[in-house]
Amino acid sequence: MTIILDAMGSDQYPDPEIQAAVIAAKEFSEEIILVGDENLVKPKLKALDSQNLPIHIEHAPDLVEMGEKPVEAAKRKPRNSMAVGLNLVKEGRGDAFVTAGNTGAAMFNALRILGRIKGVARPALTALFPVRGGHCVVLDIGANADCRPEFLLQFAVLGSIYAEKVLNRKNPRVGLLSNGEEAGKGNQLIKDTFPILEKSGLNFIGNVEGKELFGGAADVVVTDGFTGNILLKSSEAVAKLLTDTLKEELTASTITKIGALLARPAFNKLKAMMDPAEVGAAPLLGIDGLVFVGHGRSDNRAMYNAIRIARQAVKADLLPALRSAIEERLEMVENIAKTTLNQS
Amino acid sequence: MTIILDAMGSDQYPDPEIQAAVIAAKEFSEEIILVGDENLVKPKLKALDSQNLPIHIEHAPDLVEMGEKPVEAAKRKPRNSMAVGLNLVKEGRGDAFVTAGNTGAAMFNALRILGRIKGVARPALTALFPVRGGHCVVLDIGANADCRPEFLLQFAVLGSIYAEKVLNRKNPRVGLLSNGEEAGKGNQLIKDTFPILEKSGLNFIGNVEGKELFGGAADVVVTDGFTGNILLKSSEAVAKLLTDTLKEELTASTITKIGALLARPAFNKLKAMMDPAEVGAAPLLGIDGLVFVGHGRSDNRAMYNAIRIARQAVKADLLPALRSAIEERLEMVENIAKTTLNQS
Repeated sequence: MTIILDAMGSDQYPDPEIQAAVIAAKEFSEEIILVGDENLVKPKLKALDSQNLPIHIEHAPDLVEMGEKPVEAAKRKPRNSMAVGLNLVKEGRGDAFVTAGNTGAAMFNALRILGRIKGVARPALTALFPVRGGHCVVLDIGANADCRPEFLLQFAVLGSIYAEKVLNRKNPRVGLLSNGEEAGKGNQLIKDTFPILEKSGLNFIGNVEGKELFGGAADVVVTDGFTGNILLKSSEAVAKLLTDTLKEELTASTITKIGALLARPAFNKLKAMMDPAEVGAAPLLGIDGLVFVGHGRSDNRAMYNAIRIARQAVKADLLPALRSAIEERLEMVENIAKTTLNQS
Repeated sequence: MTIILDAMGSDQYPDPEIQAAVIAAKEFSEEIILVGDENLVKPKLKALDSQNLPIHIEHAPDLVEMGEKPVEAAKRKPRNSMAVGLNLVKEGRGDAFVTAGNTGAAMFNALRILGRIKGVARPALTALFPVRGGHCVVLDIGANADCRPEFLLQFAVLGSIYAEKVLNRKNPRVGLLSNGEEAGKGNQLIKDTFPILEKSGLNFIGNVEGKELFGGAADVVVTDGFTGNILLKSSEAVAKLLTDTLKEELTASTITKIGALLARPAFNKLKAMMDPAEVGAAPLLGIDGLVFVGHGRSDNRAMYNAIRIARQAVKADLLPALRSAIEERLEMVENIAKTTLNQS
């Protein structure tokens, strides 16, 4: 197995990527190809005593600078590390691509180079939300602001297979994000999608609200990219407001400072729960290839976890499983598209 | 001034309501009419040494029981305390109605009895979100799952007047909830609404995300009722997950327990920030009358704050201000409705 790793993706590139490649190559004995500026990557890799490890470098001369608009820059600079890395996957020289670069740029490049799984209407951005007892796969979190019922059906299929194959959930519980648990609640899109998911052959548990999502009642939660993006960013913002307020109040007096010191293990647990490094990376689902995008703030532990997840996906034959799950429901999707197009 | 108070609304009815009525009548010297089952309310009120206070009771014999579907029960039981109270406002015997009962039932009864402000397409449910430095008015949080641009314009107008008149914000900053700050981001509804808000004469600050909302960058945030409801419930669920986890971890060892004891002032501050009692109640905006709905879990302090807010709204002439702000933009709304109807 070969994992293609974007060496230029994280905010602190290329150090987290190179360090993670070394750790992962030692542990997994799989080949890792670091894609990036050779002049930058080579000496740093050498300095890490990596001579006997199956790590190689693929040169990508174009650098997307901080402050450039990622998608526009990706167009103007075709030999950027994402494009070069994805082409390696396309050419069969790698089994999965991992990056901590901009998500929009990753989706743009992946669509252009790898394309969609046959029959997929729209690929989705995925996030793993920290919830009670673990994580929940939420999609779409931003690729498709306006969705149709058949898109949401496919998101449900893709998310369910991912949860099963990579997160080892048996018969994953799939929920539809809505403004009420009862069937019949929702906007028009949700009302149209609900009966379709009931017939999808998935383990559809019905509408879910924030309570069920963060309470850990579902393995996969499906939503349109507009709502999903607001859900993601608002959840992060609430968590930040609460932890910032707590931090400020804890340093307000000597007594509370001592209290905070003694209570540190509890705060560390909270911090770990919200740490994106725990998750590593989330897949672009619906792309005809395995592409994982980690947080820009990824450190070497986050990048290592991203590689680990990508490896798991390859070992679990995720891509063929996604392809056949989509193919199984092609007729269903076509019928929905016809029906809803006739209505509008 | 007379405030009409639903005595049967809160989960612990009628004690929080009666206690709050006594405190508020003493402090404000305004008349308060408690609406509810006289046999229940009268002895409890008498026991509180309220003989010389301007508090009266209006009998409402129909009781909506816990477990009944609120809106259906409101239909079957027309002499429930909400309906009786709202009719008092309708007849001019009171200036504002306050309830801690079910929000859907309040909206149903208010629409039926008081109707909409002339020209308002859809009234909205409002919530005050705790944000950095204070609170933000968010609407709609659940009345209208599918919205049109002219609805959102009117929500912005109603929310802005409310923030100005009742929350004393000068020139309130109005944001449009979207999946990106840049103009041009959003689903079709947001893209259509953005240029309308730019021309609305309001202090429109553009698209906002969770970061701006919870960071306190806006006084009013406008959204459709589907997204707003998910935002509200998810934020509550995230806060609950974090505080529950923290609580569990803090009680995990003797050391952390001692730490938690010393750090208690910080936790109390956090708790206060998320306490619905601080807010008291939020208005149904667009209804042709002043109606305030508090949390079902309201205690007497929450009910007192709800009365205080309602009194402020009456004193500030909120209703006439809402009416004229809507009237000023009637032509604009009609033009938008025509244009978008022609497009679809």
